[in-house]
Amino acid sequence: MAALPPILLESLQTRFGERCATGDAVRLQHGRDESSLAPVPPDAVVFAQSTDEVAAIVTLCHRHRVPVIAFGTGTSLEGHLHAVRGGVCIDLSGMNRIIAVRDEDLDASVEAGVTRKQLNAGLRDTGLFFPIDPGADASLGGMAATRASGTNAVRYGTMRENVLGMTVVIADGRVLRIGNRARKSSAGYDLTRLLIGSEGTLGIVTELTVRLYPIPEAISAAICVFPSIASAVASVIATIQLGVPVARVELLDALAIKAINRHSKTTLTEAPTLFFEFHGSPAGVAEQAQTVQDIAAGNGGVDFEWAVKPEERNRLWQARHDAYYACLGLRPGARSLTTDVCVPISRLAECIAETMADVTESGLVAPLVGHVGDGNFHLLLLADPDSTEEMERASAFSQRLVERALRLEGTCTGEHGIGRGKRKYMALEHGDAALDVMRAIKHALDPDGILNPGKILPD
Amino acid sequence: MAALPPILLESLQTRFGERCATGDAVRLQHGRDESSLAPVPPDAVVFAQSTDEVAAIVTLCHRHRVPVIAFGTGTSLEGHLHAVRGGVCIDLSGMNRIIAVRDEDLDASVEAGVTRKQLNAGLRDTGLFFPIDPGADASLGGMAATRASGTNAVRYGTMRENVLGMTVVIADGRVLRIGNRARKSSAGYDLTRLLIGSEGTLGIVTELTVRLYPIPEAISAAICVFPSIASAVASVIATIQLGVPVARVELLDALAIKAINRHSKTTLTEAPTLFFEFHGSPAGVAEQAQTVQDIAAGNGGVDFEWAVKPEERNRLWQARHDAYYACLGLRPGARSLTTDVCVPISRLAECIAETMADVTESGLVAPLVGHVGDGNFHLLLLADPDSTEEMERASAFSQRLVERALRLEGTCTGEHGIGRGKRKYMALEHGDAALDVMRAIKHALDPDGILNPGKILPD
Repeated sequence: MAALPPILLESLQTRFGERCATGDAVRLQHGRDESSLAPVPPDAVVFAQSTDEVAAIVTLCHRHRVPVIAFGTGTSLEGHLHAVRGGVCIDLSGMNRIIAVRDEDLDASVEAGVTRKQLNAGLRDTGLFFPIDPGADASLGGMAATRASGTNAVRYGTMRENVLGMTVVIADGRVLRIGNRARKSSAGYDLTRLLIGSEGTLGIVTELTVRLYPIPEAISAAICVFPSIASAVASVIATIQLGVPVARVELLDALAIKAINRHSKTTLTEAPTLFFEFHGSPAGVAEQAQTVQDIAAGNGGVDFEWAVKPEERNRLWQARHDAYYACLGLRPGARSLTTDVCVPISRLAECIAETMADVTESGLVAPLVGHVGDGNFHLLLLADPDSTEEMERASAFSQRLVERALRLEGTCTGEHGIGRGKRKYMALEHGDAALDVMRAIKHALDPDGILNPGKILPD
Repeated sequence: MAALPPILLESLQTRFGERCATGDAVRLQHGRDESSLAPVPPDAVVFAQSTDEVAAIVTLCHRHRVPVIAFGTGTSLEGHLHAVRGGVCIDLSGMNRIIAVRDEDLDASVEAGVTRKQLNAGLRDTGLFFPIDPGADASLGGMAATRASGTNAVRYGTMRENVLGMTVVIADGRVLRIGNRARKSSAGYDLTRLLIGSEGTLGIVTELTVRLYPIPEAISAAICVFPSIASAVASVIATIQLGVPVARVELLDALAIKAINRHSKTTLTEAPTLFFEFHGSPAGVAEQAQTVQDIAAGNGGVDFEWAVKPEERNRLWQARHDAYYACLGLRPGARSLTTDVCVPISRLAECIAETMADVTESGLVAPLVGHVGDGNFHLLLLADPDSTEEMERASAFSQRLVERALRLEGTCTGEHGIGRGKRKYMALEHGDAALDVMRAIKHALDPDGILNPGKILPD
């Protein structure tokens, strides 16, 4: 890795003073994420406070052909932040102003460093909420960059459906304002959707306008235990086919429930379990829950529990919320290589069945947590980071899982993104011609390749 | 306009025989749409029957640097099909196979020439439907190319939200398969969304996979008359803010109702009128209708009528369905310059009020029909095509309307697209930097500019 050109560093230090940092600790902190990949620190970190500042930094880096990487909260799972070719990290966490909340239009404009929890806290008195919940309290800029989603995408969509417009700094330092606040538009190329999911390789999101939703009049929750994963998934398919507007439907397998029992001292039945949430009017959520209970019973579901009061709902869902850390606790010291395939829902049972057989055969410890309404599920492959053999076994398993998902007309990543970790699957998923088109777009917008190099597109 | 290179025409005729046509009638038919712009016929029309054939035609045209324009049903409102630089029109109407309907996944794959009504007819026994309804019985390929929507976008979204993947022929004749059947993906650049709304300038859509929805258990309809457009719009805002999942909400102004009374011999109150449709369970639609009736009453709405039975629903909505031709009937011999702005819903009343004042001042006959749940409304500017003065007056009015919508944070086109007619507004709407980015993408994907030249991007 080449160090920064001294003249560039001097320019950054002159303009940003102490907000341009080169100490080891701050660099390491900005070169690390929540993936199982080894961290790669940038050469410098600049803490930006405005779009103009981001534009100034990118302009300087562009002049010197030095990589720039945007940083929100560092919760990537695919090495998105790793400075694999060195360069300058722009920390956007100080850009955390909620610029406007417009209750009549059900939208809000925020700076990219605002996190989803911060936005929802800021909405507390409006009767509105922002639904996308990827688990981590990620920044909205980062969530746009990875096309994030989470537990309630089945009802509310992903970042793809929920960003109306953005302010973006492109490779030469110019500022674009793309999209607008209208609910729909047919005015030219959809640059907003092109930037969403581009992982900082086509531009740096500095502000965005997102959709909000009225907090439902009534919310209810339910859980139900199934004799098999297949019967749980069959219930989900029937629920969606009947048009029940379920807000969340999550699957945990028996091992994940076992992990929760151990972690939270609960006594849940250690069997595949679905967690539901319903949003609507009081009569509507009761009707939805009844329909789902009937469907579940028809598929062998038992112990259906239903709750309306917040504390009761939280009790039912606590296991789901604890799942990630509880699962990590199954093998202390292990890191999780977290898979993220997504398939058409009709193929989900088949995909999971083949995958669980592979888990057994591979001798891996791998609890399952799934956003099954979308056909998206995660396995936490708990591997010892000091064992090359084990990491390779997990990696080979992950590759077979991706190949399986693609064969079933799905995708290698439902919501975590490509980053470094999944670049090797891009040609397999998209084909060479589509990959060429992506490369042509990247080259047209960033001819020097300074925007988050080494991500998404294979070399 | 340069004629086709003889060697190209010969190649096309050799391969396609009578399916390559150069007669005046067929060329004129393929150079005409439903806009008020004068037709511009292509040099030849080839009737394609497969993706491979489209690829072969584009490959030949690419070799000779000759323009290619895709044709579905010819229902564009912005001159999208006009062969402004000559070239070959590829008629896709023969590519009308429904390739697969997958009821478990709520999706269908179709060839690009399948129309929305044909798809819904093909779904008749599945309990599913395809919701996007732009009025015309357009081809799904054309609807994807213009990012179409229509009356129920407020509930089901636009083509942007409802296309999962596509087969596309790009400028050099290569075939891309983009997207997949998973409900969500974070795997690289969103080429599907980039192609949607690109109006044939980045690629030709030959097949697409679209989302389907369960036919709701219950459907109900309602109409309500208001003392003013402002009070009608206030009712819509309140309805959406309360989270009522209304499936359709349409506004007609007093002049449009008058046109309908004249056209259909009805005796509707000639005042601003909202048309609603509700989808859900029987209890759910009753609840929705009651909520909306209460809101409407609070805003001075009167004569609220509600219906559940199909024949009663159709009677209530007949006026809305008749609106377009009824409005044209206000001035026989006139053509309609149809405007299409879309603004944030909070600005809709203001936008319409200023616009109606402008209608009066301009002395134009211009009934209003609006998809008000989206903030999108159309004025049919009924002008005499033989009067240059009148056409110019309508055009100047349209320009002021676009400027007004942009000032109110909206867009010049909610659903009709840019085509030829609105290219002059692109810089105003997007700014020079964003327009540069669009040009860079166009140049990267179609360096010779053969794909539907003279559309979207200003020269």
